Amino acid sequence: MRRDLVRFFNPRSIAIVGASQDLGTISGQPLKHLTSHHFRGRLFPVNPKYSEVLGVKCYPSLEALPETPDLALILINAARVAEALKQCGRKGVPYAIIFSSGFSEVGGAGADLQRQLAAIAGEYGIGVVGPNCQGMINVADGVFAGFGSVFGADYEPGGVSMVSQSGGFGYSVMNLAAKDGGLNFRQIVTTGNEVGVSSLDFIDYFIDDAQTSVIVCYIEGLKDAHRLLAVGSRALEVRKPILAWKVGNTEQGRKAAVSHTANLGGAMELYRGAFRQAGIIQVEDIQDVTDIGRAFRCGRLPAGNRVGIVTISGGAGILMTDECISRGMEVPQLASATTEKLRAIIPSFGSLLNPVDVTAAIFNDPDLIRKTLRAMLDDPEIDSIAMLNASLQGELATKVAAEIAAVAGQCTKPIFMAWSAREEVNRDAYALLDAAGVPHYRSPVRCGRALAALSYYAGALARDQVRRAETMPVISGGAARQALAGKTDDVSEHAAKRILAGYGIAVTREELADSREQAFAMARRIGYPVVLKVQSPDISHKTEAGALRLALASDAEVGTAYDEILRNARAYRADARIEGVLVQQMVVGGIEAILGVVNDEQFGPAVMFGLGGIFAEVLKDVAFRVAPVTQSVALDMIAGIRGHAVLTGARGAAHADIDALADTIVRLSALALDLKDNIAELDINPLFVLARGKGVIAGDALIRTLPRN
Amino acid sequence: MRRDLVRFFNPRSIAIVGASQDLGTISGQPLKHLTSHHFRGRLFPVNPKYSEVLGVKCYPSLEALPETPDLALILINAARVAEALKQCGRKGVPYAIIFSSGFSEVGGAGADLQRQLAAIAGEYGIGVVGPNCQGMINVADGVFAGFGSVFGADYEPGGVSMVSQSGGFGYSVMNLAAKDGGLNFRQIVTTGNEVGVSSLDFIDYFIDDAQTSVIVCYIEGLKDAHRLLAVGSRALEVRKPILAWKVGNTEQGRKAAVSHTANLGGAMELYRGAFRQAGIIQVEDIQDVTDIGRAFRCGRLPAGNRVGIVTISGGAGILMTDECISRGMEVPQLASATTEKLRAIIPSFGSLLNPVDVTAAIFNDPDLIRKTLRAMLDDPEIDSIAMLNASLQGELATKVAAEIAAVAGQCTKPIFMAWSAREEVNRDAYALLDAAGVPHYRSPVRCGRALAALSYYAGALARDQVRRAETMPVISGGAARQALAGKTDDVSEHAAKRILAGYGIAVTREELADSREQAFAMARRIGYPVVLKVQSPDISHKTEAGALRLALASDAEVGTAYDEILRNARAYRADARIEGVLVQQMVVGGIEAILGVVNDEQFGPAVMFGLGGIFAEVLKDVAFRVAPVTQSVALDMIAGIRGHAVLTGARGAAHADIDALADTIVRLSALALDLKDNIAELDINPLFVLARGKGVIAGDALIRTLPRN
Repeated sequence: MRRDLVRFFNPRSIAIVGASQDLGTISGQPLKHLTSHHFRGRLFPVNPKYSEVLGVKCYPSLEALPETPDLALILINAARVAEALKQCGRKGVPYAIIFSSGFSEVGGAGADLQRQLAAIAGEYGIGVVGPNCQGMINVADGVFAGFGSVFGADYEPGGVSMVSQSGGFGYSVMNLAAKDGGLNFRQIVTTGNEVGVSSLDFIDYFIDDAQTSVIVCYIEGLKDAHRLLAVGSRALEVRKPILAWKVGNTEQGRKAAVSHTANLGGAMELYRGAFRQAGIIQVEDIQDVTDIGRAFRCGRLPAGNRVGIVTISGGAGILMTDECISRGMEVPQLASATTEKLRAIIPSFGSLLNPVDVTAAIFNDPDLIRKTLRAMLDDPEIDSIAMLNASLQGELATKVAAEIAAVAGQCTKPIFMAWSAREEVNRDAYALLDAAGVPHYRSPVRCGRALAALSYYAGALARDQVRRAETMPVISGGAARQALAGKTDDVSEHAAKRILAGYGIAVTREELADSREQAFAMARRIGYPVVLKVQSPDISHKTEAGALRLALASDAEVGTAYDEILRNARAYRADARIEGVLVQQMVVGGIEAILGVVNDEQFGPAVMFGLGGIFAEVLKDVAFRVAPVTQSVALDMIAGIRGHAVLTGARGAAHADIDALADTIVRLSALALDLKDNIAELDINPLFVLARGKGVIAGDALIRTLPRN
Repeated sequence: MRRDLVRFFNPRSIAIVGASQDLGTISGQPLKHLTSHHFRGRLFPVNPKYSEVLGVKCYPSLEALPETPDLALILINAARVAEALKQCGRKGVPYAIIFSSGFSEVGGAGADLQRQLAAIAGEYGIGVVGPNCQGMINVADGVFAGFGSVFGADYEPGGVSMVSQSGGFGYSVMNLAAKDGGLNFRQIVTTGNEVGVSSLDFIDYFIDDAQTSVIVCYIEGLKDAHRLLAVGSRALEVRKPILAWKVGNTEQGRKAAVSHTANLGGAMELYRGAFRQAGIIQVEDIQDVTDIGRAFRCGRLPAGNRVGIVTISGGAGILMTDECISRGMEVPQLASATTEKLRAIIPSFGSLLNPVDVTAAIFNDPDLIRKTLRAMLDDPEIDSIAMLNASLQGELATKVAAEIAAVAGQCTKPIFMAWSAREEVNRDAYALLDAAGVPHYRSPVRCGRALAALSYYAGALARDQVRRAETMPVISGGAARQALAGKTDDVSEHAAKRILAGYGIAVTREELADSREQAFAMARRIGYPVVLKVQSPDISHKTEAGALRLALASDAEVGTAYDEILRNARAYRADARIEGVLVQQMVVGGIEAILGVVNDEQFGPAVMFGLGGIFAEVLKDVAFRVAPVTQSVALDMIAGIRGHAVLTGARGAAHADIDALADTIVRLSALALDLKDNIAELDINPLFVLARGKGVIAGDALIRTLPRN
């Protein structure tokens, strides 16, 4: 399949299969929009009913065209699309956009039709975009190949490239971001059901496209989500931020996504983890796209997340402080030298603390702002400035803007403005800021959010540098693969733990006993107290079955427990296959965590971490990362859960061995990759996280093998 | 103090104390803005330096004025304000706005000055607004009494009244909401440090003001927060929604608020609880003010929270589904009759499920939308409709809007639109929607948020009806007050529980033993197993002191434990006053919860609820309500915590006795009110919540008495 998409966005000629003379309809619009935007290449309407459309010669078939077009737009009934695509193939057409609906999104016969398209695209090597999409716009070169109200407008070209799985809404986002948000686009494509070229293919192309500086995507579900890490990493390398708007995050939203473009994605938690790993910025509304897109125009990144706030309105300063803090930034104390400088500048009823309130005294002394900004920028405790100008407008506003612009030109720290004067009454001031690369927002909330995104991105770049320098442990899992080969049952605790141990994951000391006497000997070797459990692939709920005994302190207790466990297990399920009774070290103390592997259909192997009990089960307070996971990524994952404080000494507990926990996650991710053809799921529950320096121990484990197809 | 604010907003004459001829400065602006907006009353600049300002006769002092003005604007140095206010008093001026800064917000001498103002205002009965504020605008009557860029503009009058503690930012919000958001204001006032008339006073006035339909407030901290419930309840009664933007919610934000207008408020958790109780809608950005304010223009409320979504873009439908679900609404299955009707209307590649996707086929058949809306509105499973039109514009858009408007006119369910076509290209369509009272938003996220707010408000009205019909238990707490009278120490467990029991709160069976023999007798009366604990006002950490023993099953165990506990207690703290050893019923099973009372300086007595252990301590997953709390309010409070599922059978546990828990919260709130002069804090930790029908039992309790001043 073609993924060198230069000619897709810059076709020299376009065939419009199913072009209609009724220019308001879906099949009538593309030719109208292409011509009204002065498409510079050749256009070939194809429809046996007409000899011309809109004054352009119309052909009865693709075969009849005088040349091979670079791109075919297919706008005919779903039932006839496969034949048209074959004709494209025979003619050698490299790219086709299939607008028609009625494929996988309707299920059944539609899914069959879509599989046919995939086969034809593969056979002829056609780069197919769609079906069930709304086309493409190359703003810079005036290629408006699609339908919808947005195609009737003109846009200022810029550096933002966007791919959207949604057609109608994708173009709405682009239109509002461009027209009202001042974000200038280079190209935008909608991909619908993605039978051929995927969203990630387009992002890959945008990364290489020299004129693209910011990438935006609207995602319902990525069938090739396993590529997210690699794509994200490439984007970080060339410093092109990716803004991702992922929808279908609730159970019902996900169902709606399937019935829309049939793009079934993994759980939102996996996306959230992968976005974090890949330094992708999550956005959640149209305004986010605009606000964060514009943030990158400042052309600089903060060295850290410490914000200095300067305000002419105390009320806005409070709001901005809340906003920065709640988005993970710091609003630190200023260096005492800075406070001293400010004392000489700011009126006595202002505030010298961060947020610095220069007050409405600005009306009486416009120099206040320049002097204050200079003092703050010199402060080594401050990485960026958020300046709040309330509704300042008029001559004073323009003077103030000029001073801010001048200050911005002489420093390398980002300066962001919250300025609520309306566009219409403050054009001069805003133009000065735009020219100086000072992003400005009408509300402090939006300003804080955009600055936090820039700060997140700077952090992602730094994290990525660390990650690149890390190595993964080299572990040969040959034995594990052999043990799992051909297995279709669940792998029960003892065997699962031997596999974990093979990857260097600490497990409880334990042995599998076939008799009371063996159990005594084992218990003494392991050391009292011990735990006894039945081992059976048919009994997963050991407690419920009465087949688990804790804290056995003597041979006598072990003997009684051994007999009871076997008796109870047989009573619970007479036909259970019993592998023996597990004699196991009893772990005392530690914090109970849960680790898991999911072998996701879209993402591939991923690891999960959460704290035990209600954290994971009731609060769903878990974090995911796609494998491979390095030490720094594992540490970031651990720090990301809400209950993190439990590991760092909350409630009087000892600080847990987080390094060992992270190392175990790293090893589990290595295992997950190594055994990706063998295991569907793996659970370690509980994993005992002991006090710092004491390590972790897997208390129980279960492997669900991959069902053979 | 005057709180009949009609003449404040409609003064027949205004004195401007400190009026300056330099019209750009703070003290120069009010006269300029009042005259340029054609103030219809009489204006009296007061400044001994001038004989006229801006052509208006200027007076040397307030005393010299030919009449008593209805309102004085005071714009002079902080040090001279008290004298000017006294002159107002002597002249009989009913209202004054003090713009000057340099009072409580700077602490120290400033706070002293502010206290002087309070005294003078009280002495003369002046309604003082400010100090440290930016004035007032009465849009309807053209009274622009203040300074700042916003005062230079004109506004369409409407029904929104706003009070803001922040001057600069408050006016920014109003300006953007009015000019760009289309929200029309009636009056707006900024209150700064609130030495006299408070935000709640103004809200109280707006509730009675016939022309106000929506109330907005920007709050840093309410010194009279205990009034919130009463004010909110009055507003619900007359169906005027209050939109509250509370800032200073992080620890650092709160500090910034104090140094700004010196309005120290309670914790955000208390505000959140009180807002919920009072049916107040929380907003968090300028756009929220506009979006939610406009939602109420539809003039109808949904009967429930079940949303039917109709979309022409599947992608937007997914987004809207996510948005509704995550804001607590439902996107239910449609009745089968509705689905059948839709099957005849919608193309086969559309979706008949909710969200209903009529697809881009709308371009070919504009009737689709009307038919679909009608079918959905007839569905008894649907309380409101969210319709998504992507970027539809042009003639087709106007036609579609007309049909939606017609449908809206024939039904009583709210119809909300997400329509991303730009204002400029879709004026006709939007005008039709406006005329029909159909709120429309550029993004589905904002549309969903606004609809959720309307739905929340409808729910608040319903909850308020239930609450009004409820009664509080009548409990005479005379004995408890007597027991607490004069006490300054903490009240330890046994005594605290007797107080709880006096309010009908179940506590463990327990007795205080003075000897081993007493302990034996008590243990037998209570029933084994029992718990033994030292009782001492000087030992609050009993476990740490080794002065607590659980699960004692016999006289022998009780005897040993009794001796050990006393020995350990004395070793832990030799001078501890020991009241005895508490012999207590050992509660087995149940879910551990925490209940508390805080006697907040601003809110007065309030109750707190959370689940035990990490829920409250690590996750801060607790809910507050201001007393009194009725049964339905307590149930709402319980349902509001994140870990709520723990009480309803999560992790295989029994469904907990939530009714008994709610009853206990109700009784605790009665206690909190009854003893508000005696207790500062009360903790029940743990409260064991047993299985349904088994009740709750307070396991431990502590009362912190109110420090005497």
